[in-house]
Amino acid sequence: MDHVSDSSVRRLSSYLRVLDELEHEGDSMISSRGLSELAGVTPAQVRKDLSHFGSFGRRGLGYSVAVLRGEVRAILGLDRRWRVGLVGAGNIGNALFAYKEFARQGFDIIAVFDDAPDRIGQPLGELEIRPMDDFESICRQRGVEIGVIATPARHAQQVADLMVRVGLRGILNFAPRKLFVPPAVALRTVNMAIEIESLSFALVQDEQALHVRRRFPPGD
Amino acid sequence: MDHVSDSSVRRLSSYLRVLDELEHEGDSMISSRGLSELAGVTPAQVRKDLSHFGSFGRRGLGYSVAVLRGEVRAILGLDRRWRVGLVGAGNIGNALFAYKEFARQGFDIIAVFDDAPDRIGQPLGELEIRPMDDFESICRQRGVEIGVIATPARHAQQVADLMVRVGLRGILNFAPRKLFVPPAVALRTVNMAIEIESLSFALVQDEQALHVRRRFPPGD
Repeated sequence: MDHVSDSSVRRLSSYLRVLDELEHEGDSMISSRGLSELAGVTPAQVRKDLSHFGSFGRRGLGYSVAVLRGEVRAILGLDRRWRVGLVGAGNIGNALFAYKEFARQGFDIIAVFDDAPDRIGQPLGELEIRPMDDFESICRQRGVEIGVIATPARHAQQVADLMVRVGLRGILNFAPRKLFVPPAVALRTVNMAIEIESLSFALVQDEQALHVRRRFPPGD
Repeated sequence: MDHVSDSSVRRLSSYLRVLDELEHEGDSMISSRGLSELAGVTPAQVRKDLSHFGSFGRRGLGYSVAVLRGEVRAILGLDRRWRVGLVGAGNIGNALFAYKEFARQGFDIIAVFDDAPDRIGQPLGELEIRPMDDFESICRQRGVEIGVIATPARHAQQVADLMVRVGLRGILNFAPRKLFVPPAVALRTVNMAIEIESLSFALVQDEQALHVRRRFPPGD
C-alpha cells in the first residue's frame, strides 16, 4: 500500500458515510461520479483515493455499495473491535459513553477511571468507576489498547504520559489541550470547545465589522 | 483590529483553557512564558497573538489572570449569550443538550427540531421536540441566531440551506459531511467520526506494517 495522506483518510470516512446511507436506502450500485457528488469531491479524487487500496470498480458499472462499504470499513480498521479505557467520568465522558456511534465504530469502553472521590465506585452503565491508581493494573489485566482522555485540560498530558507508559497504542483526546506523545502512539484530538469558540469569534467579528460600517458608512 | 487568523483564534481558545485553570487554582498573575508553557507554544507567539487585541501585560509583572481571562472571553465572543436552534434529537443532539460546557460558553438551546414521528412532541430537557415544518416560524418568533446540525449526514446540507434561508448567522455542524453556505454565514464543523476513524486507520496501519516486517524481517 502506498503512503496514504491524512486528508485521504478523512475522505474515506466521508465516502463511508455516503455508502452507509446508500445501503440504508437500498441502493446496490454507485458510480464514482455519484459517490463524488454525494461526498462533495471530484470523481477523479474518488478514483484516486480508492486506487491506493486496489481496484474495486468495474468500468461502466461503478461500485457495488456493499462490497465497497466492506472494503472501506476494513481499510479504516472498522471491521474489528478495540478495547478502550476511558479516563474522566464527567460531562464529556458520560456523553461519550452514551454515544452509540462510538461502539458502532468498534470501540468498546471496558473500563472507566476518575480521581474525584465522589465519582469513584459509582456506576457508569454496567461499569464501575475506578480510581486512577488502578489504571495500570486494570489496563494490563484487561488488555486495554486505546485510551480516551475526557479530563479537564490541566490533567490531560499527565494522563497521556500514563497511557504511553502502560503501553496503549492509541489515544483519543477530548481535552482542549495540545498533547505530546511518542510517534509510535497514534493520537487524535476531538476539540468541541475550539470549534464552538471559533464560531463565536466569527460571529462577534461580524458584529464588530457591522458596527464599524454603521459608524463609518462607505461614501458614495 | 488586524485580520486575525483561524489558528490565532484556536490558540486564544487554548490560552483561555489555561486561564480558566489558573483562576480555578487561585493564581492571580501569569507571565507570557508561563502561559506559553502551559499552552504549548512559544512566549513570542503568546505576545504576538495578544498584541492583535491591544496591550494587556505589564513588563516584568506579566498578566493579571482575571483581566486577561475576561479580555480573551470578550474577544472570543463568550461574554454574551447566543440563541441556538438544534436540529436532530438523536444520539448527538441528546449528548450536546446534556453537555454543560456548551451553555457555559454562552450557547442556549432554546428550540429542538426533528422529523422522526416518534420523536416529535417528546420532551428534551424542558423543551418539546418540534417538527421541521415549524423551524422557520419558531426561529423567527424566538430570534434564533445559531443553528446546530445533529442530523444524519444525508440531511445536513438541506438543513443548512434552510438555516441560511431563515437568516441564521452561524451554523455548528456535527454531521460528518462537508457543507456549503454563503460566506456571510459562519460555519464550523465538529467531526467526531472522522477523528475516531482516523485513529482506527492509524492503528491498523501500524498492525499491517508490523505484519509486513514480520513476514519480511530486515536482513542483517
